[in-house]
Amino acid sequence: MAVDAMGGDRAPEEVVAGALVAASDEIKPVLFGPRETLAPLAGDLEVVSADQVVGMDEKPADVIREKRGSSLFLACKAVGEGEADAAVSAGNTGAMLAAGLLEIRRLPDVHRPAIAVPLPAIGGPSVLVDAGANADARPEHLAQFGHMGAVFAEEILGIGEPGVALLSIGEEPEKGNRLVREAHDQLAASGLRFVGNVEGRVLLAKAADVVVCDGFTGNVTLKLLEGTITTTLETFREEVTASTRGKLGALLIRPAARSLRTRLDPETYGGAYLLGLRGLVVIAHGNSSRTAVANAIRYAARGARGHVVERVAERLAERVGER
Amino acid sequence: MAVDAMGGDRAPEEVVAGALVAASDEIKPVLFGPRETLAPLAGDLEVVSADQVVGMDEKPADVIREKRGSSLFLACKAVGEGEADAAVSAGNTGAMLAAGLLEIRRLPDVHRPAIAVPLPAIGGPSVLVDAGANADARPEHLAQFGHMGAVFAEEILGIGEPGVALLSIGEEPEKGNRLVREAHDQLAASGLRFVGNVEGRVLLAKAADVVVCDGFTGNVTLKLLEGTITTTLETFREEVTASTRGKLGALLIRPAARSLRTRLDPETYGGAYLLGLRGLVVIAHGNSSRTAVANAIRYAARGARGHVVERVAERLAERVGER
Repeated sequence: MAVDAMGGDRAPEEVVAGALVAASDEIKPVLFGPRETLAPLAGDLEVVSADQVVGMDEKPADVIREKRGSSLFLACKAVGEGEADAAVSAGNTGAMLAAGLLEIRRLPDVHRPAIAVPLPAIGGPSVLVDAGANADARPEHLAQFGHMGAVFAEEILGIGEPGVALLSIGEEPEKGNRLVREAHDQLAASGLRFVGNVEGRVLLAKAADVVVCDGFTGNVTLKLLEGTITTTLETFREEVTASTRGKLGALLIRPAARSLRTRLDPETYGGAYLLGLRGLVVIAHGNSSRTAVANAIRYAARGARGHVVERVAERLAERVGER
Repeated sequence: MAVDAMGGDRAPEEVVAGALVAASDEIKPVLFGPRETLAPLAGDLEVVSADQVVGMDEKPADVIREKRGSSLFLACKAVGEGEADAAVSAGNTGAMLAAGLLEIRRLPDVHRPAIAVPLPAIGGPSVLVDAGANADARPEHLAQFGHMGAVFAEEILGIGEPGVALLSIGEEPEKGNRLVREAHDQLAASGLRFVGNVEGRVLLAKAADVVVCDGFTGNVTLKLLEGTITTTLETFREEVTASTRGKLGALLIRPAARSLRTRLDPETYGGAYLLGLRGLVVIAHGNSSRTAVANAIRYAARGARGHVVERVAERLAERVGER
């Protein structure tokens, strides 16, 4: 398991600490980063020296040109060369996508890799694909996102015959923009258990096992969902604690409030999968704590054990064969 | 003020009741609908007979073909013919858009009418344009949405020199899909106080006075925002009341919970403006209560007093003149 020890707002301390927590008989994290920085933190973990570091705001094109020797790139390269079964980073998502494409490469039948993110849905697990890899997408890309999301739901979320929905602005097939209307037809003919269009209204409750959209809509959606949950709960806290009566009430509801925060916390899920490559890549939240990093590493290990990459490859090859 | 008394899930009872509440020396609601249905409810209000009724799920194309004599169409026609200063409906949004285009018509320089919806932002009023009129839009449409939204913010929300933001997936100008990247350049050159891209993360806190996007993204966003607030608060209530301790706490925080619900309730704002027509159209939530209908009517009256239509017309004519 290749861990980019320098990726994320709280690297390297929290990343290395998370790797130490996740390390077990089955999981052997290998840390990528400057040896002198990591040595004092790494304990028993193996370190692979990588002197360059990719900043959170560096542009992918610049990273490709100048940072091939970075911890982020070398972690992906280890996966591409079969030396690691997955790469995990809390770093720059765009750079990770670029490194994945260059060092790990796309699966043969995949048009575009996509980011799959489990949503903190109340009614049970649900996965959003694409959460931001492809700001512009074509209908056939969305159909593939459906297949990749279904494999993810089966192997990672443990859902049999997952239902796949298309995010739109009305449930009727004719609702949506041009992209979504065409994708609807392709998903309906995809062999997936396609459950039709869903609206944003039901996303947090639980819209479907898999929710498909283009990466622009998906990224707006994911950030809006996280921001709205946070702002609603914070505002609630402020309203409640503005009065003495409310302060007392707040003490009494504290366990329930904590439990809700945990249920809705994206860190609980550990990270996003980059699907469609010849190897596994998991991207954790930029501000991941050690717990979130440990979850992301375990989550990557689960994907490796579940042969997610091979399953996506087989599934897409079958679909191509049928056409 | 032309009120479609048959529009909405709770029409005609709640719509007529709302019109009665809103009626005043300045506001004279006129009810459109079947005379025999409305007469027993209407009190002193004027009734214009319209025998057809548009269902919430009827397709706009069918409505145009078959329902020109409906309460919804005739209310718009009254505005188009200068007999009413605004039309208000809690009915079918797509049909309202179609009726507005046919009976009221676009302003001369407007590419596409857009739906402007005030967001229940915590940090103060904010307006989202387009919330669903144009599922597919071009960059020049988004620039016009910025101008229309700015007039709305000035006249309806009372904000001087409103800041206009573009909804995207990162703050940097190069982030976004093709549409958004091109719209960014046009907004930057628009003469508006353009504050750049914003992410969904900050929408509920308050992203900007005006938030511009295409109608697909806007509609997904609006429904996601409403659904996420509702689901978060409902789940919180369930968690809290699952224990005796929590139930007691819930009693103590009840006033704060009510206050938050009111702050975040879309009904407080009354409805959506359809901007870019030669007359004013306000579309209320489909499940509007009498209070929501009354707010929508008052809100339409404010637009008429503030000469929103004339202001949009002048503003866009100026911009066209400058080019």
